[in-house]
Amino acid sequence: MIKVGIVGATGYTGVELLRLLAHHPDVEISCVTSRGEAGKSVADLYPSLRGHLDLRFVDPEEADLKACDAVFFATPHGVAQAMLPDLIGRDLGAGPKIIDISADFRLRDRALWEQWYNQQHACPELLEEAVYGLPELNREKIKTARLVACPGCFPTVTQLGLIPLVEAGIVDSSRLIANAATGISGGGRNAKVDFLFSEVSDSFKAYGIAGHRHQPEIEQTLAQVARAGQKPSVTFIPHLTPMIRGIHATLYAPLLDTGRDLQALFESRYRDEPFVDVMPAGSTPTTSSVKSSNVCRLSVFQPKGSDLAVVLGVIDNLTKGASGQAVQCFNLMFGLDETTGIRHVAVLP
Amino acid sequence: MIKVGIVGATGYTGVELLRLLAHHPDVEISCVTSRGEAGKSVADLYPSLRGHLDLRFVDPEEADLKACDAVFFATPHGVAQAMLPDLIGRDLGAGPKIIDISADFRLRDRALWEQWYNQQHACPELLEEAVYGLPELNREKIKTARLVACPGCFPTVTQLGLIPLVEAGIVDSSRLIANAATGISGGGRNAKVDFLFSEVSDSFKAYGIAGHRHQPEIEQTLAQVARAGQKPSVTFIPHLTPMIRGIHATLYAPLLDTGRDLQALFESRYRDEPFVDVMPAGSTPTTSSVKSSNVCRLSVFQPKGSDLAVVLGVIDNLTKGASGQAVQCFNLMFGLDETTGIRHVAVLP
Amino acid sequence: MIKVGIVGATGYTGVELLRLLAHHPDVEISCVTSRGEAGKSVADLYPSLRGHLDLRFVDPEEADLKACDAVFFATPHGVAQAMLPDLIGRDLGAGPKIIDISADFRLRDRALWEQWYNQQHACPELLEEAVYGLPELNREKIKTARLVACPGCFPTVTQLGLIPLVEAGIVDSSRLIANAATGISGGGRNAKVDFLFSEVSDSFKAYGIAGHRHQPEIEQTLAQVARAGQKPSVTFIPHLTPMIRGIHATLYAPLLDTGRDLQALFESRYRDEPFVDVMPAGSTPTTSSVKSSNVCRLSVFQPKGSDLAVVLGVIDNLTKGASGQAVQCFNLMFGLDETTGIRHVAVLP
Amino acid sequence: MIKVGIVGATGYTGVELLRLLAHHPDVEISCVTSRGEAGKSVADLYPSLRGHLDLRFVDPEEADLKACDAVFFATPHGVAQAMLPDLIGRDLGAGPKIIDISADFRLRDRALWEQWYNQQHACPELLEEAVYGLPELNREKIKTARLVACPGCFPTVTQLGLIPLVEAGIVDSSRLIANAATGISGGGRNAKVDFLFSEVSDSFKAYGIAGHRHQPEIEQTLAQVARAGQKPSVTFIPHLTPMIRGIHATLYAPLLDTGRDLQALFESRYRDEPFVDVMPAGSTPTTSSVKSSNVCRLSVFQPKGSDLAVVLGVIDNLTKGASGQAVQCFNLMFGLDETTGIRHVAVLP
Repeated sequence: MIKVGIVGATGYTGVELLRLLAHHPDVEISCVTSRGEAGKSVADLYPSLRGHLDLRFVDPEEADLKACDAVFFATPHGVAQAMLPDLIGRDLGAGPKIIDISADFRLRDRALWEQWYNQQHACPELLEEAVYGLPELNREKIKTARLVACPGCFPTVTQLGLIPLVEAGIVDSSRLIANAATGISGGGRNAKVDFLFSEVSDSFKAYGIAGHRHQPEIEQTLAQVARAGQKPSVTFIPHLTPMIRGIHATLYAPLLDTGRDLQALFESRYRDEPFVDVMPAGSTPTTSSVKSSNVCRLSVFQPKGSDLAVVLGVIDNLTKGASGQAVQCFNLMFGLDETTGIRHVAVLP
Repeated sequence: MIKVGIVGATGYTGVELLRLLAHHPDVEISCVTSRGEAGKSVADLYPSLRGHLDLRFVDPEEADLKACDAVFFATPHGVAQAMLPDLIGRDLGAGPKIIDISADFRLRDRALWEQWYNQQHACPELLEEAVYGLPELNREKIKTARLVACPGCFPTVTQLGLIPLVEAGIVDSSRLIANAATGISGGGRNAKVDFLFSEVSDSFKAYGIAGHRHQPEIEQTLAQVARAGQKPSVTFIPHLTPMIRGIHATLYAPLLDTGRDLQALFESRYRDEPFVDVMPAGSTPTTSSVKSSNVCRLSVFQPKGSDLAVVLGVIDNLTKGASGQAVQCFNLMFGLDETTGIRHVAVLP
Repeated sequence: MIKVGIVGATGYTGVELLRLLAHHPDVEISCVTSRGEAGKSVADLYPSLRGHLDLRFVDPEEADLKACDAVFFATPHGVAQAMLPDLIGRDLGAGPKIIDISADFRLRDRALWEQWYNQQHACPELLEEAVYGLPELNREKIKTARLVACPGCFPTVTQLGLIPLVEAGIVDSSRLIANAATGISGGGRNAKVDFLFSEVSDSFKAYGIAGHRHQPEIEQTLAQVARAGQKPSVTFIPHLTPMIRGIHATLYAPLLDTGRDLQALFESRYRDEPFVDVMPAGSTPTTSSVKSSNVCRLSVFQPKGSDLAVVLGVIDNLTKGASGQAVQCFNLMFGLDETTGIRHVAVLP
Repeated sequence: MIKVGIVGATGYTGVELLRLLAHHPDVEISCVTSRGEAGKSVADLYPSLRGHLDLRFVDPEEADLKACDAVFFATPHGVAQAMLPDLIGRDLGAGPKIIDISADFRLRDRALWEQWYNQQHACPELLEEAVYGLPELNREKIKTARLVACPGCFPTVTQLGLIPLVEAGIVDSSRLIANAATGISGGGRNAKVDFLFSEVSDSFKAYGIAGHRHQPEIEQTLAQVARAGQKPSVTFIPHLTPMIRGIHATLYAPLLDTGRDLQALFESRYRDEPFVDVMPAGSTPTTSSVKSSNVCRLSVFQPKGSDLAVVLGVIDNLTKGASGQAVQCFNLMFGLDETTGIRHVAVLP
């Protein structure tokens, strides 16, 4: 059994991680930390776990994380970078393997990170070595990584939707548009008026118009797969939609070559991917079809009379967009079958 | 008092119309027709009207619509065009004034209508004379019209959002994108599995990918305001979001001139409009802020580093997107204050 | 015009009050106070009011409430009782008329109030003189009152549902059960995890099991109408249901006399009430039929083979359950038609 | 591997059953029947199953159900009783084991069944032998049964909540009240106006006031456990609440003996039950805590000053209330660990 520690498990990505790991056949959850809830039973905070998990939150200062084989960070940004120097040393050879679900190591460029997150990075020496945890792009690197930075929720689906087009060099990647709608759980378990039921139910709005941190992350990944000379640029407009889980991305890319069979391109790119499902031509994905599952479903089409490729993509923001993908990376890091513990069928309806 | 008849009032636009007209100070509702519910009390079908309206549905064959001063059609397309020849004669001088909330007279080009609606038009001679009921564009024509074709819900907000940009000639109107999300009531009160609570709640999806009838309508209006030589073209992708009422449009327009003050342009264009509200710079509208009201709220901005104008617009699809706008046109047609009976504050939360 | 001041208008009952008063034909809103939002435009906090209300919040210390003809308190309990001594003096003859939507003066018994609200009452001398603002019970007293204590949301519908039975003396009022479900807006605009969309959407739960402050209020009113010798007692179990507005009460009362025509009893009791609607026998009310309206709808029946009377009642908790009823009382206090400004048809769907 | 056939898998209990059986380690799904969808891929109807199940619906006439080891009926009532005579013969020794999720064999009394379901029973000879599939009551009988009649959704949670009290003989079982609220999926995947999103979202109502078929089922079970001389009678009022999954029951029972430790009674009764969770004293269950899981959570308490026991119970109507409980029975019938394939943690949030 692989001994696992979880830092900051009181949020929604935390409880989702616990849901998935509680019955993971190769995992023993050793410790779950929380500063605010230390001493409290995990199942008291999340009754869904009653009967599945008999653990109490411990203060991070008192948790023996170094004795773990793997440590997940389900924390706000800033926490992992502060704890890692002590936990895995400046020397990556020591300590547990790290799967960071937060934003701390997503951007390789320190200046870019500090600009978007508006603070100094506490552990810049690991930025370069961290592997971006999108298995569909970096599977081999993840297998040997000691530190995996899991993608954000919007970037996961946006990147999976745009990679085939950008890789193939058939779109003008400097004029991409990502129009996305997310369920409210993306805002976390934070007591903010903006996320109250009475504020967001039966309503729809855009937000983050002044710029969203997921934009540079998307552009960084697309730059990695773009043809030489292309500098991908994305106009990213996120929206809040009254559902708990799910992200739907509607992606627009100007075609340079309108003669390509887009459906075949996508099917070929993702043929062997266990968690990317290209829908039959002409059909569209619903977020309900991936609820609580680790699957990303994609559709691609070219509207009549238009020179745009339009890609529709859906994920569960808490699963493939966060904790499920983290377990997928964990499986790869420990040489397990990539789908272990995360094969669930989506809960529908 | 102006005698009003309503054809087909059993759907959601019908009950919304009754809500607004029940207390309209200049209106007397003379008859409400329904083939399926003839004889039934309107308030039995819609208990919200108990105590407000003491009327029974009558069969359209037996309703004396010709004795009305105004007749609203809240019907599926095909009905108004079949009834109008008899009701107002080939000669527009006779009979009641008509406010058609359906799609029958929205497109001036008969061939285009027949192509998109996949049937022969039964009354093509009125297509030319019908006035498109967007007061912000056609106010003067509406005042003297005998037949007003009320815009569709998506076109209303999309056109209000794009008109300032296209009129000013500062965007490439051949590459417009309209990404919109609608509440479920837009699908009507039809017993379809696709609109069941368990299908659409807690889920989000795109639809109408193969082409939506609102697209040619939008393009027709934009062509009317475009500079000479421009042929507006819109890629329109509608989505279904789990709320009852509301449409949110996110509109993308490539700027030809990036130096214009877009905020000032919008404020100037809509300064005197009672039902278009340009939000303060930097803020974004929510559909909840217009729920049950006749207001369209707009925000415009230019994302950093992009040459796109992005417009956000919200309306209540049943009010400004249908029945409220119909009453607004009615007020104009009868020389009343344009806001009579539709000044309600949005219900929030 | 009657000059109105509103204390504490930043919550949901506040914005509902503003929605109703903004177009009340006899009202001029003079001042709106808020400690936290002083200086901010009301419409900036509630965009639904843009174009309807051009006012800024003022600090309660600086508001000239004494110059108002009427002052509404839309505050948490404790505020009105602290401000009233200065505002209307110990002598009820001076100052504006007060409509208190909070719980401060609902219970006549000071000891009972202090026990349930767990604090000393700051203005007990007014408890006796305050008139309980349920027009269907206390209409005449409200007309001449200087201080009206508006009923709580649950008590409003529960009392309207039980009064006919208890007044008639045909039920054992010592064994009443009130099982109620409320929309989330009842919890107010407070940043609590418990009211987050992700916590309460798609879920249902009971709460307040240890005792809810609305229980003694219900019992106080029923005692007022009960036959001599009866001491009404209610087991009250509230539930939270995932909707914004609305309360549904299911009331159980053991019949002492099973031969009475309950339908006739209810219709007779409420025949002349403008805001109580007894549904036709056999039909059941939905909360959507009263959304945003001031109506209470009731059904009564006796299940086959049972000696229970079962009453179903619905109201909008923010309207008839709070601010709408407050305006109804205000109208009575100022000799206006009781329905002025609150005749709206419910918004449906 | 146990060969399983499913009759009528196009509804919500059907897709829930497929979700659970798709990864059940001892099950091979042999055939899935549907008259209306014959020939269609199951995953085309339910995209959540794409990649999990490669099967097409077959017409029931052409399905070789007799070759199965077990057949589940996820059909409307009337179907199982019509097919069983041919499928398992009048002689229960032949053919597959049957797990009927429909209502066909829930009532032992033929006359009672025919009265409530308003049709003749087509296979009354099996009524007596069918075992009522509530493992917490009939575990041993289920193990050897050839035909199990799974309980209805409301009866499951109501019975689990009342059994400890009635068994112990400490309540007056002739005056029980079951006030329950169900999610909309309980209405099935039927195209009815009543279940449209726009009708039921943001609303709450009671229904089935004239009598609900689950009432005699509850009374039958309680009679089985009641002390001699008691004839249990339940006033059952179901409500519709705007959520997809979940039932919440609030149960009222007049205590004959108010001195018993109810918490201890419940904990003792369900100590060894894998799927019944008695909550800690003073806490209340939420339906979200059991969403998509097979767990029933119960709380019991005695309100201050009352002689009522109040029990709160929650289940997922599609899982413990239907398909999950069916798999639980299936496991027992085939000698498997009772929890095989249905141990999932609830999806929360």
